[in-house]
Amino acid sequence: MKTLKNYINGAWVNSASVDTIEVLNPANQEVLAKVPYGKDTAKDVAVATETAFKAYKEWSKVPVMRRVQVLYKLKSLFEENKAEIAKIITNESGKTKGESFGEIQRAIENIEVACGTPMLMAGDVIEDIATGIDEMMIRQPVGVTACITPFNFPSMIVFWFLPYAIATGNSFIVKPSEKVPLTMIKIFELLDQLDIPKGLISLVHGGKESVDAILEHPTIKAISFVGSTPVARYIYSKGTANGKRVQAQGGAKNPVIVLPDADIEMSSNIIADSVYGCAGQRCLAASTIITVGDEKREIKDSIYETVKSRTTGYGWDDNISMGPVITVESKSRITGLIQKGIDEGATPLLDGRNTSVSGYENGNFLSPTILENVALDKDLIRTEIFGPVMSLISMNNIEEALQFVNSGNYGNMACLFTSSGASARKFRNEADAGNIGINIGVAAPMAQFPFSGWKDSFFGDLHGQGKHAIEFFTQTKVVIERWPNIWSRKF
Amino acid sequence: MKTLKNYINGAWVNSASVDTIEVLNPANQEVLAKVPYGKDTAKDVAVATETAFKAYKEWSKVPVMRRVQVLYKLKSLFEENKAEIAKIITNESGKTKGESFGEIQRAIENIEVACGTPMLMAGDVIEDIATGIDEMMIRQPVGVTACITPFNFPSMIVFWFLPYAIATGNSFIVKPSEKVPLTMIKIFELLDQLDIPKGLISLVHGGKESVDAILEHPTIKAISFVGSTPVARYIYSKGTANGKRVQAQGGAKNPVIVLPDADIEMSSNIIADSVYGCAGQRCLAASTIITVGDEKREIKDSIYETVKSRTTGYGWDDNISMGPVITVESKSRITGLIQKGIDEGATPLLDGRNTSVSGYENGNFLSPTILENVALDKDLIRTEIFGPVMSLISMNNIEEALQFVNSGNYGNMACLFTSSGASARKFRNEADAGNIGINIGVAAPMAQFPFSGWKDSFFGDLHGQGKHAIEFFTQTKVVIERWPNIWSRKF
Amino acid sequence: MKTLKNYINGAWVNSASVDTIEVLNPANQEVLAKVPYGKDTAKDVAVATETAFKAYKEWSKVPVMRRVQVLYKLKSLFEENKAEIAKIITNESGKTKGESFGEIQRAIENIEVACGTPMLMAGDVIEDIATGIDEMMIRQPVGVTACITPFNFPSMIVFWFLPYAIATGNSFIVKPSEKVPLTMIKIFELLDQLDIPKGLISLVHGGKESVDAILEHPTIKAISFVGSTPVARYIYSKGTANGKRVQAQGGAKNPVIVLPDADIEMSSNIIADSVYGCAGQRCLAASTIITVGDEKREIKDSIYETVKSRTTGYGWDDNISMGPVITVESKSRITGLIQKGIDEGATPLLDGRNTSVSGYENGNFLSPTILENVALDKDLIRTEIFGPVMSLISMNNIEEALQFVNSGNYGNMACLFTSSGASARKFRNEADAGNIGINIGVAAPMAQFPFSGWKDSFFGDLHGQGKHAIEFFTQTKVVIERWPNIWSRKF
Amino acid sequence: MKTLKNYINGAWVNSASVDTIEVLNPANQEVLAKVPYGKDTAKDVAVATETAFKAYKEWSKVPVMRRVQVLYKLKSLFEENKAEIAKIITNESGKTKGESFGEIQRAIENIEVACGTPMLMAGDVIEDIATGIDEMMIRQPVGVTACITPFNFPSMIVFWFLPYAIATGNSFIVKPSEKVPLTMIKIFELLDQLDIPKGLISLVHGGKESVDAILEHPTIKAISFVGSTPVARYIYSKGTANGKRVQAQGGAKNPVIVLPDADIEMSSNIIADSVYGCAGQRCLAASTIITVGDEKREIKDSIYETVKSRTTGYGWDDNISMGPVITVESKSRITGLIQKGIDEGATPLLDGRNTSVSGYENGNFLSPTILENVALDKDLIRTEIFGPVMSLISMNNIEEALQFVNSGNYGNMACLFTSSGASARKFRNEADAGNIGINIGVAAPMAQFPFSGWKDSFFGDLHGQGKHAIEFFTQTKVVIERWPNIWSRKF
Repeated sequence: MKTLKNYINGAWVNSASVDTIEVLNPANQEVLAKVPYGKDTAKDVAVATETAFKAYKEWSKVPVMRRVQVLYKLKSLFEENKAEIAKIITNESGKTKGESFGEIQRAIENIEVACGTPMLMAGDVIEDIATGIDEMMIRQPVGVTACITPFNFPSMIVFWFLPYAIATGNSFIVKPSEKVPLTMIKIFELLDQLDIPKGLISLVHGGKESVDAILEHPTIKAISFVGSTPVARYIYSKGTANGKRVQAQGGAKNPVIVLPDADIEMSSNIIADSVYGCAGQRCLAASTIITVGDEKREIKDSIYETVKSRTTGYGWDDNISMGPVITVESKSRITGLIQKGIDEGATPLLDGRNTSVSGYENGNFLSPTILENVALDKDLIRTEIFGPVMSLISMNNIEEALQFVNSGNYGNMACLFTSSGASARKFRNEADAGNIGINIGVAAPMAQFPFSGWKDSFFGDLHGQGKHAIEFFTQTKVVIERWPNIWSRKF
Repeated sequence: MKTLKNYINGAWVNSASVDTIEVLNPANQEVLAKVPYGKDTAKDVAVATETAFKAYKEWSKVPVMRRVQVLYKLKSLFEENKAEIAKIITNESGKTKGESFGEIQRAIENIEVACGTPMLMAGDVIEDIATGIDEMMIRQPVGVTACITPFNFPSMIVFWFLPYAIATGNSFIVKPSEKVPLTMIKIFELLDQLDIPKGLISLVHGGKESVDAILEHPTIKAISFVGSTPVARYIYSKGTANGKRVQAQGGAKNPVIVLPDADIEMSSNIIADSVYGCAGQRCLAASTIITVGDEKREIKDSIYETVKSRTTGYGWDDNISMGPVITVESKSRITGLIQKGIDEGATPLLDGRNTSVSGYENGNFLSPTILENVALDKDLIRTEIFGPVMSLISMNNIEEALQFVNSGNYGNMACLFTSSGASARKFRNEADAGNIGINIGVAAPMAQFPFSGWKDSFFGDLHGQGKHAIEFFTQTKVVIERWPNIWSRKF
Repeated sequence: MKTLKNYINGAWVNSASVDTIEVLNPANQEVLAKVPYGKDTAKDVAVATETAFKAYKEWSKVPVMRRVQVLYKLKSLFEENKAEIAKIITNESGKTKGESFGEIQRAIENIEVACGTPMLMAGDVIEDIATGIDEMMIRQPVGVTACITPFNFPSMIVFWFLPYAIATGNSFIVKPSEKVPLTMIKIFELLDQLDIPKGLISLVHGGKESVDAILEHPTIKAISFVGSTPVARYIYSKGTANGKRVQAQGGAKNPVIVLPDADIEMSSNIIADSVYGCAGQRCLAASTIITVGDEKREIKDSIYETVKSRTTGYGWDDNISMGPVITVESKSRITGLIQKGIDEGATPLLDGRNTSVSGYENGNFLSPTILENVALDKDLIRTEIFGPVMSLISMNNIEEALQFVNSGNYGNMACLFTSSGASARKFRNEADAGNIGINIGVAAPMAQFPFSGWKDSFFGDLHGQGKHAIEFFTQTKVVIERWPNIWSRKF
Repeated sequence: MKTLKNYINGAWVNSASVDTIEVLNPANQEVLAKVPYGKDTAKDVAVATETAFKAYKEWSKVPVMRRVQVLYKLKSLFEENKAEIAKIITNESGKTKGESFGEIQRAIENIEVACGTPMLMAGDVIEDIATGIDEMMIRQPVGVTACITPFNFPSMIVFWFLPYAIATGNSFIVKPSEKVPLTMIKIFELLDQLDIPKGLISLVHGGKESVDAILEHPTIKAISFVGSTPVARYIYSKGTANGKRVQAQGGAKNPVIVLPDADIEMSSNIIADSVYGCAGQRCLAASTIITVGDEKREIKDSIYETVKSRTTGYGWDDNISMGPVITVESKSRITGLIQKGIDEGATPLLDGRNTSVSGYENGNFLSPTILENVALDKDLIRTEIFGPVMSLISMNNIEEALQFVNSGNYGNMACLFTSSGASARKFRNEADAGNIGINIGVAAPMAQFPFSGWKDSFFGDLHGQGKHAIEFFTQTKVVIERWPNIWSRKF
């Protein structure tokens, strides 16, 4: 079994650490690779940072229009290697084929937006801000930057940051989740084909030790993180304590309100896709479905029917709507939370705990679970499950439902299903969440827009993607110019 | 002697703290007032925050075009009360009359820019981002926000933040320096005349205890700070550890390069104004003057002549070019640093330590000091003096000078004096500082532009003023909308 | 009876023309003033242009931040003189008191937006667009500009242009409608108080001759026009033939669709306000009301009831909902068109032709008229009436109604009344008009947005108000800079 | 000899016209093809427009992110076919190999910028512009659009418009110069490979008749033109008279000032490249070189030396710095203008009229000509020569030179050579031209910036390239939304 290499200074190199942990296929526990781990991975970070600094010094001098040429190339490489990357994603993360292709598409879209960096990073200029004085603001790169990413989107999340970081002239270090490092290995084989300075983009494996090394290294100026809220808090707090700029995205418990005037069939399908897509392991998975009003039985029945028909299995097989969850521990945690919900009073409309997939008996499979009437005054209703579990509750009207939505700690996403323009407007205006869906189940901002978590779902001010990413990866420089009046003099 | 009140919930109220410290006129040690201080001021913060939250809830519902009407009014109030505010500034901070008027003008300019908030906070919308799906980003206020400001600009710095915070729908708490609280007292008398909800803008006095209360209060979402670098670091680290967004501006040691092709007379005057304006107590004061090339004697002589002629005294008197420094301790610290520079090998071209102003014998006066040949390998060359002291050094060429500039820890400002377009361009491009002046001595960004400190002069990513302030005081909300296809149905 | 003066070169002067026509109060035919008219008014234009050019040369050198100071002042002057201006508007145009105040408010809002010109006219800059080359775009004024405005908004329409024109550094000539020149006389008394160069803003009276003089004068670079479509076409064609930039807004025949799911009461009131406000004499007056579906009787009844209760009379009297139309000829034209509609087969639900207002027996009064079932294949359905006449027709569904909307020649406004988000979205996306209202009767863009007529309602590309106005009144200047490499040389 | 086909409705078709004219290689008069011409080409325009309208209806419904995918593809196709296109350009236009490659690169850069259309065409949205009312502006395509382009950049100029037009959802008709139609034939073979609706992009050949057909067709909504000033005036006047939006770029007579502090060698080389590049046949060719001050002899000598060494010949041969001019008539016109200059008093430092290129004896060759002391009060000094002729004059100082620059009718470009920041600033601020070069000889805006001709060099307001092109090819739609308050009602 091979041990994965780091990609540092433009070459594949062994980690300084001899310790490793195994990368498993969650559908069958097959060992896919060994990944470096442990204390000595901090040394890898140090080396990567040093070479990244040199690369930044060189790359930041390359005009932005030339810099983005590598992104056009990268887009092509992604498109040509889509199937291969998707297969790797499925194998190490458990996603279905469609989900794997889907996240690659989102990565590509961020590369496309970053191709527009020459205009996006343009500064402002005002002539004659006072008589004879001009003032302008230009954006320059911050230096060495890094991202620390989670297991649930092995390809996409890195690209909320990477294309913008390098297009604006920075160097960039990727520390992927140790559970899904293989996707990045493949992607770095593509990055290796780009015409960029050695060390500009690095891949370092590891766990908490490498994360801490990144947070502490004085040369690293900006850190982008996506993961759970407790870790996001840690990253934000420690990174800033070291003087860095940090954007740290955390967890969620996303509520969805279904009004009586919603389109039943459309809503049911979209909601089921949102709750059970990626086996519920995404920060924009719908979690708590709040039906409003008298006709709620109909929507519940419709949801039940559409959920019941979903198939679980190995993601690369045909006709699979849901793959396994990431680890045995994760499965165990989720089944525990389902039990906790039931213990707290919920009714299991569907119980997905005892699931077996033929040929994949060792996989971390769960089937879709629906818990009805989850207790509003107990723990589960506010606990992020991060698994294929729907909590189904009822409210009397939209105000009550909104109050419930806004009283949670998270603010990643809130969705409304309705046919009413008035309700949509009220919800859009009042819901305390940064990503709002109207008849949308996964309100993931397109790459042009900031990925806008609120409250405990995000720490910082500038988000990933689009203009926010451009701003995050640059520092503004204001220049004020005046010139001596030489016209009285003779040439 | 009166004890200053806080302004909380739209009324002047006594602090919960009975402890006070004295506010002194630095020109004569006259006690101007007593200001609340100590542990119990934390209670004031709590009350102010509670009422600020209610005010925010109401104010954020007022359309932005109505919200900015109070800023138009405020601009008028400032203009009508300019002289009175200026006098207070001079009396508690020591500034000259012209300097006091000058900083008020800068405050007004920020109010003007914030009048444009209806357009500045507009969001983006893309129709049909996918077939039948529209996506938009809107900006909403973050809630209760606060600023903590230093003694050196008693009026201006608060207005890098306040106008933007309230125009975008937030409430705002001001914690001014306990050394100069009187200016804010006067300004809050003006704010009191605005048609805004009670509690929208509050004034709380105090020192470290009130600062900590602000940093710790969970309801306060965003903090703006300006002060010294160690405190900025503390604010940034502690505020973010509590999950807030923070922008914290620190100290500086601003270098100025004078090339041999600079206009001698213009450069000398501008540089002297920069070094000795506000008695050197501003974060954009030029500190280290680097003359380049053979003709450096001429520029030094010219600087010497212009500096020598500067008059020191009580700032409100006529023909005074420099007032006292803020405190006795400050004066003592500065004289100590001058001595340290001499001990380290510098030559005092002018020694301003023994200065006496007739009629103001108790004032914290210093005259302009010039230290020539400050040792490059000792401490003083990198130490922020924050007093009327110029360090004069020489370099062989612009590359050497730039290397010196870029090797410092601070990055607030760097200026170049030259007549050469090529040199200006090189400097603009390469100098590691966020505010660049070309033939400008105090490169203070106009209100349209971010006040862009770099390195240890700023912690965070979004600065004060202009679009950055708008972004800092709002959170982005992305809305994705789709509607059911109802056209097959009958009405 | 006084003859009105022009305001040229900062002073009130007699026209070169001795011919005049009378300005009448449409409520009682009282002669309010005589206004210069005829061939010799062209000489006034020539003088105004000459002094305007000089003023532009001076004014364009004043920094934009100083230029906008006069707009802050102008806002205050408008607010202080609101009632007086409103009274004049009512007296010469026939509007109600509320309508007169309303249009002044819109004028003020444009002044406010133009206060933001320092940021709105900022250019873009890209550093190192190629190695060592920087590129920027700045905006500079175009020179002498002019507007030609209609009778129906004596104050407002000039301010879609004037504040932007002068804030960006141009001079500006106003040629108001000869039917309502008094409002501008009053407003120029306010403009006269501003601290601006003589000749910067001029007022010239007259009719076609002065218009042609404006269109032909080579020094005038940009023309803004609002009026009827035939004249707009003439202005656009002739102004451009003389090499100028022209924005020419024409007429309208604005359709409104009412879906069966609309809120009956709200819709009826809003629609009546739109049709009969300003006696139907505005380019955003709803004209053709299209009820859709089976329940249409109910909405028609509600409209009928609300319209019936509207009171006609002298606009400054209390409790008047509609004033007279502008002239005897106008009244005669409108009554003729009503008869034509009836002749073509329409049913008069309400016939407002025989109206008499006690005390104002000579006024040009009409009461609200409703024509039901206006023939779709005859002339009136596509004829702009510009009077208080509602055409009421029915369609089977929104597609049919949209097809009708999109087959007209005009494209100024289209509105939809519905509670359905889906219908609103479809309409927003598909209606061929530049100003769209959803449950809005007069979709007048706020000053931040372009006043976006389409098709025969607008000729040109950049509209009035907001960023479009800034772009229209400036020309872009691109600057590309490179500097010789002097670093190999000795200083 | 083949007759070129049109590309209409996604297919290569014969023109309705049987008349043709010959396309000649200007280096040897070889007949390269026959191109349709004459009255019946108007029929081609009619057919192309009809199919273009259908294509627009379909294409405008495709989400913008999908639309730009064809631009990414087109960029690749251009890069793969660069050499082949370049060869065709050289053969039909006479350019050198480097010049042909150069203009293709500029075309590609516009394609790149237009890839960013999803963000560039985003609209603005303001929530709660009044209580409960939201307002947004979106951009929608205008419909069928067309460009009419000149002979001197057979590939590039079309791409100042085409990528933006189709990215924003319009269809587009290209009418290339009848002198250089072959480049577009090749490029349409590439466009033919794109996945777009039939008829979206059309190619129609012809001369004045097809131009008039485009100007008159009511379905065509927007026209982009580049050519000489008299024709630009005609296009602008006639297109607007037909109600269209038009941007029409005309000729130039570009002045270049060389100050005594300019870098002699750098300036000479850049100026020679500007004057003689493309044999002087470009609208940004430097034409009049104004040396300032006493040292002018040195710069003149340097220019003379560098110009003298330039080689003339067939553009695809190696080491050729200048190809032939476009036609025999053109050569004859240029030689006539040279003689006229001499007759008016100029001294021919270099006379390029008698030039023979071995092997290409029939080519339209001219060698570089320098006319010194061209009379300032005669015709030639203001006449566009559009050939390889430099007029060399002298002035006493920059003010005098600027006055000369600003007194001309054209305003396409003005350049300054200097090492002085002060002079550069003065020139940037004061020169009346839309494209300014500082130590730049051909101040062609990069694709991110508008190609900003002023005065008689441009008619219209929105230019080609970048954001201006996006604005030109879209119409703004303002949407104002309010919703009934349904919260009092029961669900």
